[in-house]
Amino acid sequence: MDIKILRMGHRPQRDQRITTHVGLVGRAFGANGLFLTSSDEKIKKSIDDVSSRFGGDFEVKVGVSWRSVLKNWSGLIVHLTMYGERLVDKSSELKSIDQDILVVVGAEKVPGRVYELADLNISVTNQPHSEIAALAVLLDRIYDGKQLKKHFDGQVKVVPSENDKKVKYLD
Amino acid sequence: MDIKILRMGHRPQRDQRITTHVGLVGRAFGANGLFLTSSDEKIKKSIDDVSSRFGGDFEVKVGVSWRSVLKNWSGLIVHLTMYGERLVDKSSELKSIDQDILVVVGAEKVPGRVYELADLNISVTNQPHSEIAALAVLLDRIYDGKQLKKHFDGQVKVVPSENDKKVKYLD
Repeated sequence: MDIKILRMGHRPQRDQRITTHVGLVGRAFGANGLFLTSSDEKIKKSIDDVSSRFGGDFEVKVGVSWRSVLKNWSGLIVHLTMYGERLVDKSSELKSIDQDILVVVGAEKVPGRVYELADLNISVTNQPHSEIAALAVLLDRIYDGKQLKKHFDGQVKVVPSENDKKVKYLD
Repeated sequence: MDIKILRMGHRPQRDQRITTHVGLVGRAFGANGLFLTSSDEKIKKSIDDVSSRFGGDFEVKVGVSWRSVLKNWSGLIVHLTMYGERLVDKSSELKSIDQDILVVVGAEKVPGRVYELADLNISVTNQPHSEIAALAVLLDRIYDGKQLKKHFDGQVKVVPSENDKKVKYLD
């Protein structure tokens, strides 16, 4: 199963760190790519840099058109919005999906058209909080927690530790 | 059970939005307060503004000393770090805690003393991603998913919807 993220409405100054977190959470939680509707090469560089050290094959594409990504996606489209149907009511449906999934994550304002084009508009609580948290919990439900054990074949490897920082550097 | 968040190392320009998301996720996911080791009143204002409209009793204290918060905390201290023990190995332990919990969430660099003072150093994957996502998934495991159904008694209420934005304004 292929899971990709479409990040919309990114504003280069204001959203730089939030969008980077969106990408890094996508990568760490088992998605395999990010489409960004902005030509912000800095984001791509930050995320590619993590992938080159920590492993995985997460692909970042910048400067894409959201319309064409949505139109050309052949699997399911899930849009994360605090106005959507509750994740708690959709978890089992999401867990049993065997198509590719495009997860749409907006900044402040998302065009109404996106709500229509999405197969599911999903809310991770109906409270205002964070698209980063919403993405993490959605992927957690889709993968049923297994993403937390995902193995990455990188040069840098953190060794879990009780109260230390242990890092291995592989050749 | 009382769950509070200690946000350390916040840099007013750089971390404003990330720290706001940390607070909003804490609020939406069932924590009841944020301690911020910076006197950034803007953060407090943003989060208080959400609470006043959407409800709940989430308290934000700015300008606190992390040493004194950690020293005076009477329950469990859980520090989120990519170097810590894996959440997957600690989930059942976390679920059965009946003490108050202080969740420590750092920005880039966290003093070694914090690793020692914490009862648990927990990693939500050992990959670099986001303290916002780590906090969301930790709270999800502590509350066993029930935080997603938490009721807020606010003036503004979002009504879950298939592909619409439905909001009720109560008196």
